[in-house]
Amino acid sequence: MREWTTNTVMHSYPGMVALVTAKWNGEQNIMAAGWHSYISYDPPIYGVAIAKERYTHYLIENSREFAINFVPEKFAHYIQQSGMLTGKKHNKFEELKMEYDQGRTVSAPILKEAYIAYECKVMDQRTYGDHDWFVGEMTGFYKDGALFAENGLPNWDELSIPLYLGRSQYMLANKDSKVLNLYRDNS
Amino acid sequence: MREWTTNTVMHSYPGMVALVTAKWNGEQNIMAAGWHSYISYDPPIYGVAIAKERYTHYLIENSREFAINFVPEKFAHYIQQSGMLTGKKHNKFEELKMEYDQGRTVSAPILKEAYIAYECKVMDQRTYGDHDWFVGEMTGFYKDGALFAENGLPNWDELSIPLYLGRSQYMLANKDSKVLNLYRDNS
Repeated sequence: MREWTTNTVMHSYPGMVALVTAKWNGEQNIMAAGWHSYISYDPPIYGVAIAKERYTHYLIENSREFAINFVPEKFAHYIQQSGMLTGKKHNKFEELKMEYDQGRTVSAPILKEAYIAYECKVMDQRTYGDHDWFVGEMTGFYKDGALFAENGLPNWDELSIPLYLGRSQYMLANKDSKVLNLYRDNS
Repeated sequence: MREWTTNTVMHSYPGMVALVTAKWNGEQNIMAAGWHSYISYDPPIYGVAIAKERYTHYLIENSREFAINFVPEKFAHYIQQSGMLTGKKHNKFEELKMEYDQGRTVSAPILKEAYIAYECKVMDQRTYGDHDWFVGEMTGFYKDGALFAENGLPNWDELSIPLYLGRSQYMLANKDSKVLNLYRDNS
């Protein structure tokens, strides 16, 4: 039975978690973000919500750049562990043994294990409640083409995507998942 | 092998699709939106990207209100079919036989089959590229408590969530899905 309430109800998951990276003045960090979205296709624009007190917020606010990284099931522990350490006290890349390259159009690190990554330059930053919404013009893209089929969908023989559920649990989108096909040929 | 490109790479899915409803001046509509996100927890704020040419954009821009509805697998065809008709020419609620109530704090319709819904009042509207990003203060919430467990996660015996994949396909998050548990007791 559906009930109405003024108490906050959160239901963001299951959803892909973005690993957000940034670098400024020789310092860099990575954090897990559950609140993120495409905003525009042409030009390509991406948004992510980051709380002001986060170390990554400080790095992005100063560098005006960030990157979005998505990792497969095998590296879901990057998501989990990134969220449990603060970059103010920990070098997460070293401690979690995450390898990376520097971005091509931004200074932010791009994870070697990311199957998709975006390079973004901040075009807007707005404070809404307890987070800032960073809006990034997407200036570079990384994709592991072997993990996608010709029709653009994941190649499920090769890719298993961890979707965060809450409570340190990840639902796997992979070859064992059930799929509902609602395509109707109207021709 | 991961490759870099300046060609736009889209990877928003699998993800929950929001059914966005709005009403203004006696007219109402519903559309499927894949680009949406929580932005703030306290106060609760939600954002959604809507292209300017959409009928729902016109209704929200004028009413300054909208609602976000999430439906279970059984009503995934609402998502699919909402995306294939335009509200400029079709009364989707009638044609798709969708039942609804009017919101309590907004005029937007709330689907009877939504297991979660949010009522939102527009606090900001920004144009980024080919979409407008509507930012809504969440003023009311609906939740079917029987579909969630005490720990806040879905009650998988009762709830099957359709996650859009692209190409009219939906991956089902339900009791048959595999779950990776990365909880570690550090006590």
